[in-house]
Amino acid sequence: MGVDAARAVAGLKELRRRTGNEDGAQRVAWTDTWITARDWLADELDGIDGVTVDRDEAGNTWATAPGESERFVIVGGHLDSVPDGGWLDGTLNVVAGLEVLRALAPERRALTLKLVDWADEEGARFGRSLLGSSACAGSLDPDSVRGLTDRDGTALPDALAAHDVELDRMLESRSRLEGAAAYLELHIEQGPVLERLDLPLGVVLGTFGVQRHRIRFTGAHAHAGATPMDVRRDAFLAAARSALAFRDDAAAHDDVRATTGTVRVSPGIVTAFNGTCEISLDQRALDPGVLEEMLKTARANCARHAAAEGCEVAWEQVWEIEPIPFDDRLIALADEVVAEVAGRSHRLPSGPLHDAAEMARVLPTVMLFVKSLGGVSHTKAEDTPEEDLELSVRALYELTRRTLAWAEAET
Amino acid sequence: MGVDAARAVAGLKELRRRTGNEDGAQRVAWTDTWITARDWLADELDGIDGVTVDRDEAGNTWATAPGESERFVIVGGHLDSVPDGGWLDGTLNVVAGLEVLRALAPERRALTLKLVDWADEEGARFGRSLLGSSACAGSLDPDSVRGLTDRDGTALPDALAAHDVELDRMLESRSRLEGAAAYLELHIEQGPVLERLDLPLGVVLGTFGVQRHRIRFTGAHAHAGATPMDVRRDAFLAAARSALAFRDDAAAHDDVRATTGTVRVSPGIVTAFNGTCEISLDQRALDPGVLEEMLKTARANCARHAAAEGCEVAWEQVWEIEPIPFDDRLIALADEVVAEVAGRSHRLPSGPLHDAAEMARVLPTVMLFVKSLGGVSHTKAEDTPEEDLELSVRALYELTRRTLAWAEAET
Repeated sequence: MGVDAARAVAGLKELRRRTGNEDGAQRVAWTDTWITARDWLADELDGIDGVTVDRDEAGNTWATAPGESERFVIVGGHLDSVPDGGWLDGTLNVVAGLEVLRALAPERRALTLKLVDWADEEGARFGRSLLGSSACAGSLDPDSVRGLTDRDGTALPDALAAHDVELDRMLESRSRLEGAAAYLELHIEQGPVLERLDLPLGVVLGTFGVQRHRIRFTGAHAHAGATPMDVRRDAFLAAARSALAFRDDAAAHDDVRATTGTVRVSPGIVTAFNGTCEISLDQRALDPGVLEEMLKTARANCARHAAAEGCEVAWEQVWEIEPIPFDDRLIALADEVVAEVAGRSHRLPSGPLHDAAEMARVLPTVMLFVKSLGGVSHTKAEDTPEEDLELSVRALYELTRRTLAWAEAET
Repeated sequence: MGVDAARAVAGLKELRRRTGNEDGAQRVAWTDTWITARDWLADELDGIDGVTVDRDEAGNTWATAPGESERFVIVGGHLDSVPDGGWLDGTLNVVAGLEVLRALAPERRALTLKLVDWADEEGARFGRSLLGSSACAGSLDPDSVRGLTDRDGTALPDALAAHDVELDRMLESRSRLEGAAAYLELHIEQGPVLERLDLPLGVVLGTFGVQRHRIRFTGAHAHAGATPMDVRRDAFLAAARSALAFRDDAAAHDDVRATTGTVRVSPGIVTAFNGTCEISLDQRALDPGVLEEMLKTARANCARHAAAEGCEVAWEQVWEIEPIPFDDRLIALADEVVAEVAGRSHRLPSGPLHDAAEMARVLPTVMLFVKSLGGVSHTKAEDTPEEDLELSVRALYELTRRTLAWAEAET
């Protein structure tokens, strides 16, 4: 028996065909293309005997292959992508999990096995990542996202309602974790570490803590020709200095991140300097103390550069998550599996967040990484050799089997 | 006798009432509101005995108060505004010129006096400034604007035709300058210089030359969490460093400008650093050699910062105009007039462009500036104290009289 790893790769290609275009994957959560991907998954699950499928209050899809006990192990991921995204980010786990479920569903098992497709991991449309999994973990505060809008002005609650999700009922999805024994997630690394080590697979130690903020610099715009340089209050230049300071501070630490991603200037025309500039700051570290220190330094740098440019600066926290270590026992299991399947294992932190971080708050959790070519993701150039994808599906299958056995022994 | 400066202020208010709303002036060229303003001017001119009015092939309106000779002096400006513009930008000259014409029309004069209302100085709808005056000066290349469209997709030639202007006949308006002796223009400063010196009026030395470019930095975007700082190719940081370098270089020169106005990043999401960043650069200087040196330095700085960030950089020139100095003899006349009317004169370059720059290519030309409160324009907040507006009308009147006398003596 065993898992059909080649079928998983074929499934990924089929999803790419259905939900991508010349610019990459377009499975942005709460859009029609995302539904196309979910419909494909539903059809695939429909073809597996004995598997039931339903949707929870947060819009997450659950497929269940019942065992003798209602106690269960979860494999999970997300079908949604960023705009112009890659074919593997998120989908690899769901499609690999689908094949694991297909392989294990016919077997007699003591424990139940579940596959979950989380709703809106990327937060690409409304800016809030891990929406479905944080609801399920109970860490979502509905009021903190109620006011979010997309670039067309559509409110998050309205977009959810169009998909039969009520914001104020999302936390009811917590009941789905009653009886859960463990959560497993396979993901592309999205970074250059495994490729640089020439390894196909790695075991993830935990996810970086994240501090994410919107920072708004306010000066006063005026005419590009009429206003002497020394009287300008140029908000873009204040933001530019600050963004460079964020990077320089991060580069001075060991294995942390600081990123300016969004940049919006106003009026944003060629014949005026800018009176406002809003940027995002995303800081990440595995050590909570380091993360706190980085944020403090960033605030000081912004204040200093804003003052130097005659601007005001205002911070708005968009989101934060503390560093989340994974389960030591599952890390050890995963290490064994990776060493067997790939010859050698490597442990590394996860730079990006994953739904697994939300699950790790409430359940023993671990992740597997498979190498990313060029370390890129969130782009159509994202790729992994097919032989490594197949290895990763086999590793997830082995890890699921051993986790089911481990959880049975723990019961 | 003399000019009725208060009547000019009343005229400006009447135009504001007829062609503005709660967001400011809406006299965008080639729109109905612009025609409303032009109709008001036509009615006012109709009330002045001996003045004839007609339209040239470029859509410019000419009012003529004949003298003994067909040789003439022009006072001019533009009634068109940007959307949500101010009450003074452009209109001040036309309305002041109207009162100068009203005052001088009854007098016996050797030379003819003309008032011109240029068509489409702002280029607000199609992006091409100085349309009517550049046609009249002969510097317009019809083919360079034939393909322009407004935001609704209307083609410039169609919008012109709706106002009885044929693009391919616009250059015929050059014949209007046969016999012209001088061109005079009064404008709000649109900058903070006179206000800071506590002076109501100034004499303009010429208009800055402009080098305007789009600069595109290309690195490779990747995930904010997964990608270590030392392997990033962050196009926004390359652009930020370059924009700061543009400013620092400009600040090191005397009375020049460098502005980064548009900033567009891609992918522009919180969870990735940016693979591309496109910015605009608008450099201005009165000295052609300085302008050339500034552009050379900017190119070198971009290349250096792009390389340091692992990025490529590509330049595309959007537009350029050489510095255009005004006429030394008319500058001296204007200096005398301003000193008499306002007590003290000050000479300054013009940051923004004006129709006077087109006239200065072919005629002795000078401009007067009147102080702008807060240095702002292109916004309904644009303002100048009424007493200063009245002073400026009197100065234009005096300057027109002396220019008529000077031109007569030159003949």
